[in-house]
Formats: sequence, C-alpha cells, structure tokens
Amino acid sequence: MSKGPKTRQDAQTAEKLKKLGEQVIASVKKGQNPGIDIPIRALSNVKFNPKTQTIEMGKDTQERQFFNTAMARKFMQTLLVASTVKEDLLGSGKTTSIRDLYYMTKHTVKGTKENTFEEQDESDPVIEDLEVSVDSLREELHLFASNKGAMVGDMTIVDQGDTIDLRRMGSGGWSIPSIVESNVIQFKKCDAKFILHVEKDAMWRRLNEDKFWQQHKCILLHGQGQPPRGVRRLLHRMVAELKLPLYVFVDNDPWGYYIYSVIKQGSINLAYESRRMAVPSARFIGLSSFDKEGYKLPDNVTMRLNDEDLGRAKQLLQYDWFQKKPWQKEIKNMLHCGVKLELEALSKKAISFATDEYLPKKLRDQDWLD
Amino acid sequence: MSKGPKTRQDAQTAEKLKKLGEQVIASVKKGQNPGIDIPIRALSNVKFNPKTQTIEMGKDTQERQFFNTAMARKFMQTLLVASTVKEDLLGSGKTTSIRDLYYMTKHTVKGTKENTFEEQDESDPVIEDLEVSVDSLREELHLFASNKGAMVGDMTIVDQGDTIDLRRMGSGGWSIPSIVESNVIQFKKCDAKFILHVEKDAMWRRLNEDKFWQQHKCILLHGQGQPPRGVRRLLHRMVAELKLPLYVFVDNDPWGYYIYSVIKQGSINLAYESRRMAVPSARFIGLSSFDKEGYKLPDNVTMRLNDEDLGRAKQLLQYDWFQKKPWQKEIKNMLHCGVKLELEALSKKAISFATDEYLPKKLRDQDWLD
Repeated sequence: MSKGPKTRQDAQTAEKLKKLGEQVIASVKKGQNPGIDIPIRALSNVKFNPKTQTIEMGKDTQERQFFNTAMARKFMQTLLVASTVKEDLLGSGKTTSIRDLYYMTKHTVKGTKENTFEEQDESDPVIEDLEVSVDSLREELHLFASNKGAMVGDMTIVDQGDTIDLRRMGSGGWSIPSIVESNVIQFKKCDAKFILHVEKDAMWRRLNEDKFWQQHKCILLHGQGQPPRGVRRLLHRMVAELKLPLYVFVDNDPWGYYIYSVIKQGSINLAYESRRMAVPSARFIGLSSFDKEGYKLPDNVTMRLNDEDLGRAKQLLQYDWFQKKPWQKEIKNMLHCGVKLELEALSKKAISFATDEYLPKKLRDQDWLD
Repeated sequence: MSKGPKTRQDAQTAEKLKKLGEQVIASVKKGQNPGIDIPIRALSNVKFNPKTQTIEMGKDTQERQFFNTAMARKFMQTLLVASTVKEDLLGSGKTTSIRDLYYMTKHTVKGTKENTFEEQDESDPVIEDLEVSVDSLREELHLFASNKGAMVGDMTIVDQGDTIDLRRMGSGGWSIPSIVESNVIQFKKCDAKFILHVEKDAMWRRLNEDKFWQQHKCILLHGQGQPPRGVRRLLHRMVAELKLPLYVFVDNDPWGYYIYSVIKQGSINLAYESRRMAVPSARFIGLSSFDKEGYKLPDNVTMRLNDEDLGRAKQLLQYDWFQKKPWQKEIKNMLHCGVKLELEALSKKAISFATDEYLPKKLRDQDWLD
C-alpha cells in the first residue's frame, strides 16, 4: 500500500503533527529541555461565551517536559500517540478505535520491564491532549469512540461513496458512524424542514413507525442517551450546512436538560470541541416540567426526584448557560413539583400521543425553550 | 383507525391471549379460584438437549391464583399486561418498548392508593411469564427491548417495504431493529457464502472499512457486546432461511465464550426462546486462548484474568454444552495461561491484521470450534 496521507485534510493534520515533532527536535538540538505546550482542560480554563453561546476553552497551557520525573512518562506517551497517528493512521488512510490505539501503542520499553501504557485510562487523556495541542478533532486524527444512534428522514446522503436514501430505511434506519466528516458523509437531496433529535431509541422507533418524519418533513435521529461525538458532529454539520432548525426531545429530568445543553453549548470537559460540535440554535421541545399539567398526564407516570437529581438540578441552575428566565422557571418548577417525567409517560395518554398530539402542538404553538 | 389484528400472525397471537382470558372467566363462572398456569423459568426447569443442541425449558408449571394473598397482585398484573397487549398493541398493529408498556399499564387502582405497578422491575418478568404461557415471543406480542447492532454485506433485504442493499450502506451500516420477524424483514438477493458475527463495533468498523465482506462474500454484523434479541433472532432466521454457516468472533475471555454460547445454545434465563433464537450450527472462530502463541501476539497485549473471570471460566467448564473435548482444552488453556485477550490485541501486529491475515487463515484452515 502506498504510504502518506490520502486526502488534503489528512495532509494538513499530518503537517500539524510533524510540526509538533519538529519543535521537540529543535529544543533537543539547542540543548534545551524538550517540552510540549498542552492547553489545560479543566473548569478553571473554560468559559461561556455569551456571543457565540458556546462553552469555550481559555488560553492557559502547561508545558509537558521531558526532563521532569513527574512528566517524562506522559511526554513519551504524547509523542508515541502522535507518531502512531501520523504514521499508521494518516499514513494508511485507515481509522481505528481509541481502544485499538491503546493496543497499537502499548509495548514494553526495550531493555526494561516498563510498559508504555498500562491501561486505556492512560491513553485516552493523551489523545484528548493531542487533539487540543494540534487543534484537530479526534475524527481528524482517524480515531473514533463508540458507534451509537440511528437516523431516518427526508434526505439522501452519501456515505463513503454509497448513496443512501434515508426515506427508505425501514424500521432499522441508518446506523450513525462515529466519523461523519465531510470526506466520509455528504448531504444530497434534502426536503426536510427541521431536525428532531430524540434522546431514546424507543421513542425514535415509535416516531419512525408512525412515519412522523414523513408527515412533518423532518430528519429524525436518536443518540441512545447521551449522544456520542459522531451524532453531535452530524447535528452540527446538518444545522450549519442545511440551515435547518434543530429540536431536542428528552426526558424531563436533570439528565435530559444536560443532554440538551451538551448538544447546544458543548461540555466543560471537551470545551475545545464546541466550535465544531455545539449547535447554539438548538431548541428544547420537551419534556418540560410544565407538561404534566399542560397535557394532563396522570400522577402515577411521574417519578420522585432522588438526592442525586436534586443536587444536579441545583447545579444546573447556577450554570451561565441556564441563566435565561424561562430556563430558571423550567428547572425551579421541576424542583417545586419534586418529580421527573420520562418520554414514555406520553404513551399513557395513547400509544401515538407523542406523534399525533404532543409534538404537532408543541411545533404549532412554538412552545419550546431556547 | 380500524381495530383488530392486522396480520394473520397477529390474529393468532391475539387468539392465544383471548383463550387465556376465557379460561379465567370459565373458572369464575364455575365458582372456582381463577388461576393461570405459568411455566417455571429457572435452572431447575431447564435442560440441555443434546439432540437439538440447545438449552430447553422443561414442563414444570406453577399456578398463579387470584385468591391467594401472595399471588393476587401478580395475577392482576398478568391479566393487565395480557389485555393491554391484545387491545392496544395487536389491536392497533403498533409496537412499543417494554418500558412503554410499563407506563401504559401503570395506574392507581380505583378507590385505593395501590398502583398496578411500582417499577419496571415488576412488569418485565410478567412479560416474560406471558411469553411462555401463551408460547409467543415478545416480538409477537409487539414488544421490543433495546435497539443495538448494525449489519452490512452481500445481501439485499426488505425492511417494512423499503428495499435496502446492504452492499451500499457506507461506513454506518443498517441499524438492526429489535423486531425482525418475517412480516417486517424479508431476505432478497443474497450472494453471501457465510455470516460473520463480531462482538464489538470497533472490529466491525475495521472489517467494514477494509471491505472484508466484499472480498470474502459474507454478511457482517455486530451486537455491541451481548447481542440483543433482535440480532439473535436475525442470526437464527438467516441461518435457517439462507442456509449459511455462522462464525462468531469474540474476545478471548469468559464473557466472549458466553456470548458465543448464548448465540449457539440459548440462555438459561430465556430458555423458552431457544427454539426460535438459538443457532446450534454456530462456530467459534476466535479469539482462542491458543491464538497468542499461534499468531505470535506479544505478551503485553494480554490482561490477567481477575477473580470474577476465574470463577466464571470454572463455571463454564461444568456446563453440559461445553463438555466437548476441544472446548475443555480451550477453556483450561485460558485458565492455565491466566490471561485474556481482546479483539483489539490483533491490531498490535498490524492495523488490518484481522482482515488480511487472521480471519482468512482461520477460515482456510477451518480452525474453529463447534
């Protein structure tokens, strides 16, 4: 197989990794202590940008040095991962899982009993450090995490050269891969008017069986709980490139609010991804803590908030991105009622209540939160 | 919408549920204590049938009676679930999740503070009881569990009327739905020579990216760990209807052996499904505890077996379905080496080692276990 990056994007990423190595070599030649600047990924170096409405990483960095007993191991690991990504992945045009990369880079250092990595816990953060250092998403480094989520709807896409009509995907749908960059996935004929992202596969299945996406001309996705990076990146690309509104449909509990906020603003831990993952225009369509009353759902479909829920909800109230009045009202009302509500609670009214009444009414009344 | 079952299969299932109700009514009219016979789902009522090579349920039943304080609640729940399945699901032709069914059947009994169900833990076993009592799979009751797994390969299928060419599914693949009965999924043009089921999505992705299924003319699935019912049922149907051999490719640890054995013989807990889920002809293609030596995998890709692994492996040695000599040798060798091996360990040799060398050699040498 011919070596070397296969696409312009890969060549750019490889170039960034090469530079990283060249800096290290330059310090060695100058007789200096070789080091790599790693941006700090922690709450202290994260802020909410009200202009872009996303969580952004600050400019603080820490130097990872070779001649420093506390850092030497991580320094070695960082360069090992960088070189493996450049040579074995970008060089061959292949992608692999973060677990695979752990195995690929794990070996015993010659003449010692020291392993380069002991557990995957050690290699995963090094990958994240590398992403930030060379400003390349994991997907651009040809790495992927788990494969979750499915999609159907009023659109045709191309996935690695195969044309896929998302209107004709039956009950299963197209399984969303972990890497959805534009060199892999392209959007073709799209007649959808909006995107509906559903937290759970059971509700997604209900809406697909009822052909909700056909009636309402939309694209329907789920992410099996907290959506993986592939799903978030796909949402971002569809909103940006197709100029469609995105509605997020989750359980009414602090976890549901959190899923919505990660899709909209990004997360604290992975703030450096916000620019290419967050969808600041995303709207929260439900379930709302006011829905139980508004849609006359019976008492026995609610569940009492437990201590963890209460603590999490109070934390959300403090976040910059939940300071808007309607959001304070929404979360405080959940705390006031003391109960949570799952998507399945809507089935209590009728099996297709979400398809036939709840969602159409919410969309008609523009009854959502920004 | 017109009421009543929509297909012959649904009408048959509805008829079985109706009979269950009629038996109860008959006892009431005779002035007897109404009861339902529920087959016992436990190790005591399970046996391995060497002829069919599957785990089968015995004939022991227990009567669930109405006039019995220990049984009255479960009696009520069983009839409530049976009636909801018959009227709301079979009656409308719709399917729903087992969580949804919990919500649909949960209510406060009129004039009391008693709820029909408190938690889903209560309704799930009632569904399983009902499946056995009326001899209908959960899928035939229009219920589904989770949606996991994906498929590509040398075959065209029809999914709810949509024709899907599994040769043109890009990197994502077709997401395997939880209900794959023949009224939903039909197999069309198939040029595949065998089926390869992979435990993990990362290895599946590797094989799909390398187009292993195209080179070797096969169907490629993964079940994201322990395969859900939809995937098992699909494997069963493909092997039975397309007469293809099935190879199972899992981690070399007790959990991998177990995944293989559930696909092949069925499970103890859900023995009543074996007839329509198990694939007695399934072959174990790896990873084997002899592969580390056979394929010269380096020491540092193995992981030490922990206490749980050791206990589990010793348990597997006792099972009737692992009594064949090669299996005893395989498991004992794992215990002897004291280590386990994940699929990712193969990447250590080369990123596409599984695609280019390991699997072709295993198939060529017929190096598998039955």
